[in-house]
Amino acid sequence: MRNIRLTIRYDGTNYSGWQYQDNARTVQHVIARTLKGIVGRKVNLIGSGRTDSGVHAEAQIANFKTHSTLPLKRIQAALNSRLPKDIVITDIRHVPLRFDSRHDAKSKLYRYTIVNGNFIDPFLRHFAAKYFYRLDVKPMAKAAKRLIGRHDFRAFQAKDGQEKESIRTIRRINVAKKANMIYIYIEADGFLYNMARNIVGTLIEVGRGKITAESVSGILRCKDRRLCGPTAPAKGLTLVRVRY
Amino acid sequence: MRNIRLTIRYDGTNYSGWQYQDNARTVQHVIARTLKGIVGRKVNLIGSGRTDSGVHAEAQIANFKTHSTLPLKRIQAALNSRLPKDIVITDIRHVPLRFDSRHDAKSKLYRYTIVNGNFIDPFLRHFAAKYFYRLDVKPMAKAAKRLIGRHDFRAFQAKDGQEKESIRTIRRINVAKKANMIYIYIEADGFLYNMARNIVGTLIEVGRGKITAESVSGILRCKDRRLCGPTAPAKGLTLVRVRY
Repeated sequence: MRNIRLTIRYDGTNYSGWQYQDNARTVQHVIARTLKGIVGRKVNLIGSGRTDSGVHAEAQIANFKTHSTLPLKRIQAALNSRLPKDIVITDIRHVPLRFDSRHDAKSKLYRYTIVNGNFIDPFLRHFAAKYFYRLDVKPMAKAAKRLIGRHDFRAFQAKDGQEKESIRTIRRINVAKKANMIYIYIEADGFLYNMARNIVGTLIEVGRGKITAESVSGILRCKDRRLCGPTAPAKGLTLVRVRY
Repeated sequence: MRNIRLTIRYDGTNYSGWQYQDNARTVQHVIARTLKGIVGRKVNLIGSGRTDSGVHAEAQIANFKTHSTLPLKRIQAALNSRLPKDIVITDIRHVPLRFDSRHDAKSKLYRYTIVNGNFIDPFLRHFAAKYFYRLDVKPMAKAAKRLIGRHDFRAFQAKDGQEKESIRTIRRINVAKKANMIYIYIEADGFLYNMARNIVGTLIEVGRGKITAESVSGILRCKDRRLCGPTAPAKGLTLVRVRY
């Protein structure tokens, strides 16, 4: 028995997210189905966590166990030749049998990309969200600082979020502006459902001057979803890295 | 009467190129149809030149004359809100009535993007061509030098190219490697049908060691299409800039 770890890069535009769902095309489903055809048996493909419909990944991590004796390079080449072109396996390696992509993940880094201007570059239209109103990044960075650390992020969880335990630790949030692009990096030990996009939506409200940077601490404390900003569009979000 | 110049950025993936064609969706057609709805009359939209099906543009130039008195910014905003998201008008300005995007173009710069490796980044899959065989850029750059200057480029013209006059001047060709990406920039006073892609196809043959850098001069001299390399895929080609 071998435990094999995959690094997966995908354009999530045409998928209903990472995770298996009935009657939906998901990244996990497409890879697991393709793997079955290569190693000859159904595999249990464990991802580091789900990404929402339309969210992208530069390096999602997943693992599966198999009795197949195919060399790693052969499995990778077969996957890449059979998978649709919007999913690529960029790395493949053996890991100890006890390794579990989901439970062993120490932190995840997401990047959110905003085009702050009149129009969105057609080459970025699936990978960034456009905001017409001028956003001021200084208060956004100030508000972001208030979210760093160990907090109950219930206010930033989707209404239908199923996690009972809503305490997470955000290690860092960076807000960077480059010409008319704004990049928000968020690294945390874990993310509640829609948490990254709700944080971005809230920071955008701060950037527009609708709420103050200081009020973000209050939103955290009240644990009330209605106080935080709207969920930012999925297409602007990319899973950059998973740390183990 | 005003003469209005547009700078147009487009992802050519879902278009049959720039130029009008019966029963095909082209960039020129989509913009002209949208403009008609804005300025109230059919316009004659003149582009700097055609781009092939699947070829992209960072800054295609086109102009049209109109009696409309709408402010430029209104025309641009209306175009960008009505055009499909893979076409964006990045600049709009008045030009003298005698300005003609096609005839006044002094030079065009194209970039060809190659992924030289086992797999193509899913985020680049519509904007680069993959070559599995290792390409050596040194002889490619050497071969490119032999094409610079004023030559008869008949050998690099598509078989069904309709230009009677096949003498063109290439001002520069740069071949640059960055990790596993190869970028080929070609600037010329004009391009025959498929000329840029046939030059790239020939440079790739040189990079693979199938033909020598020196033999490229012979291909030019013989004016025989069969001697040059295969036409490189359209999706790797982008019109970067038009000079006037």
